[in-house]
Amino acid sequence: MERRSFLKKAGVGLAAGAGVATSARAAELPSIKWRLASAFPKSLDTIYAAAEIVSKRVAEATGGKFQIQVFGAGELVPTAGVLDAVKDGTVEMGHSTSYYFVGKDPTFALDCAIPFGLNSRQQTAWTYEGGGIDLLREFFKDYNIYNMPCGNTGAQMGGWFRKEIKTVKDLEGLKFRVGGLAGQVLAKLGVVPQQIPGGDIYPALEKGTIDAAEFVGPYDDQKLGLNKVAKYYYYPGWWEGGPQVSAYVNIKQWASLPKEYQAILEDACSHAHVVMQARYDVKNPIALKQLVGSGTQLRPFPNEVMAACYKAAHDLYDEIAAKNPKFKKIYDHWKKFRDDQLQWFAVAENRFDNFMQATRAATAKK
Amino acid sequence: MERRSFLKKAGVGLAAGAGVATSARAAELPSIKWRLASAFPKSLDTIYAAAEIVSKRVAEATGGKFQIQVFGAGELVPTAGVLDAVKDGTVEMGHSTSYYFVGKDPTFALDCAIPFGLNSRQQTAWTYEGGGIDLLREFFKDYNIYNMPCGNTGAQMGGWFRKEIKTVKDLEGLKFRVGGLAGQVLAKLGVVPQQIPGGDIYPALEKGTIDAAEFVGPYDDQKLGLNKVAKYYYYPGWWEGGPQVSAYVNIKQWASLPKEYQAILEDACSHAHVVMQARYDVKNPIALKQLVGSGTQLRPFPNEVMAACYKAAHDLYDEIAAKNPKFKKIYDHWKKFRDDQLQWFAVAENRFDNFMQATRAATAKK
Repeated sequence: MERRSFLKKAGVGLAAGAGVATSARAAELPSIKWRLASAFPKSLDTIYAAAEIVSKRVAEATGGKFQIQVFGAGELVPTAGVLDAVKDGTVEMGHSTSYYFVGKDPTFALDCAIPFGLNSRQQTAWTYEGGGIDLLREFFKDYNIYNMPCGNTGAQMGGWFRKEIKTVKDLEGLKFRVGGLAGQVLAKLGVVPQQIPGGDIYPALEKGTIDAAEFVGPYDDQKLGLNKVAKYYYYPGWWEGGPQVSAYVNIKQWASLPKEYQAILEDACSHAHVVMQARYDVKNPIALKQLVGSGTQLRPFPNEVMAACYKAAHDLYDEIAAKNPKFKKIYDHWKKFRDDQLQWFAVAENRFDNFMQATRAATAKK
Repeated sequence: MERRSFLKKAGVGLAAGAGVATSARAAELPSIKWRLASAFPKSLDTIYAAAEIVSKRVAEATGGKFQIQVFGAGELVPTAGVLDAVKDGTVEMGHSTSYYFVGKDPTFALDCAIPFGLNSRQQTAWTYEGGGIDLLREFFKDYNIYNMPCGNTGAQMGGWFRKEIKTVKDLEGLKFRVGGLAGQVLAKLGVVPQQIPGGDIYPALEKGTIDAAEFVGPYDDQKLGLNKVAKYYYYPGWWEGGPQVSAYVNIKQWASLPKEYQAILEDACSHAHVVMQARYDVKNPIALKQLVGSGTQLRPFPNEVMAACYKAAHDLYDEIAAKNPKFKKIYDHWKKFRDDQLQWFAVAENRFDNFMQATRAATAKK
């Protein structure tokens, strides 16, 4: 083998005591085939791909012995069934944004995003190193799930509007395709939240059955062609400042894995976590330029509207916390973390970003 | 074995065709011991830890068969010798910020950070998914190195100043501890860059041998006690908007690894990449609050100063590109990427961040 012969020749590069030897121990590692139910259709290729990355990396790291087959939404179970499928052991793994399950418990959203929450990097910091993962795993244990961060989209867009939003009054009676906690927040301000599958947004917006719709960001929204049926593209999606995607593993299946496979799977999820965010960051700027080039009008939500939504969101959290101790426990921890993060990011990070953006804009105008 | 017996019982949860079997193939995987030379002293615990994370994860993923022993700066080779040690095969791996090696070739800085470059997330996006890694690996090949991203500090601080910087004129004759390309940029504006090891900054600043010094960010700077010898803490470190740390592997050693170990090592680096940034994001806010509480005065660099430095930086890049084709090739690609990123981040990301920070600041005042 080339490898062996090289290692012999390269002995000078090896540490004292280093050596190459075969080991019988690894022969014990089992061949395993798992199924992973994604909450996303294959058409959402960037989110969907995170699960495929995990599958590919785990297979490579184990010489093909640990296989994870990925199924798109609806192939084994529908999006809404992913959590239960992992909980009940119908599949060994799932891949989903946890805020899909706020109907079961709003606490799920803290694993992903709540309105006016953390940005992508802050959500990662909280989860990995800020104590978040321990709190979340304690919560997920009740659902027989071992959860791992596995992707983020970054701050999403606020969606497509047929008419401009200039004041809070413009929200009254607005039929807006938006779900979860964001829908509950906006309902406090008169919005009538609409639940419509991604594929049905285009005709609903075209016919005027709805007035506005949010989906993801430029790259995914462009694929749905929403720019053809609504002129105004609002930002930011303040309800999704950095939504985290999670890998779910049935907790007994997790415990059954050799330690080696646990480490391999966990690192593969970290790798997918990095790559998914990076891929969106590469794809979104290109799509945004194309959308603006095709006539899309970018609009920031007015401060007045954002401020009213901010207040409504925090009223909602207080209401939920008052009756849901699981939510309260994690939310209190998370909220203090958010406060610290905002103070720090306002200094070096934000000043750097703002200067760079202002300078680019000034240069582009010349 | 508990694992096996569980899998038998849990058969219902396994996919059709799933099964557990031992494999003889894995018995071929070798036991390997490598040495990794870190460019960082152990006292810089957060950066240093990234290499330890890689070591730990690789060992776990291989059942202890692939061991990477981590050595701090100076234990095997000094910081400045890490690149050559990997190049020459003295050690199998290194861990360093590549801008330490701009003296060999300024192109190295593009693997890490150049003044007015990318922020942490953008640098990750460019490297992993924006085409950066291919360009960088082509460059590193001439140094017998296979490079992988392995950490980021996030935007650093601009450093500690004994006197305020109000205009560009205040830079004239300023003895500032700052290195690499930042030193070259600032020299164009009259600064006299000083090269001083981290441990010598405190006495130099205390005695007034130097007027100012930059190091890393609140967490690391606090450990040096720089707040006791300089009052003004400037931001941002526009020369380090998102400095990436890299793992270096001797390219022949890399090629000698079984595919499984390559995948395991690469994912371990991705995991460390996430954890290191997360750890800084958790630690910096706490340290910053303590510094401000102890009397440190935060100061943003004035726009006029930033703008003059921006111009000087880009003049420098044009000068380097004119005579260094390797730099030009990567810089041109990188610069276009930066432009796209700035346009996109100015929309959803930045509007979200700015609103959150402004709201927090307003709430804190009440």
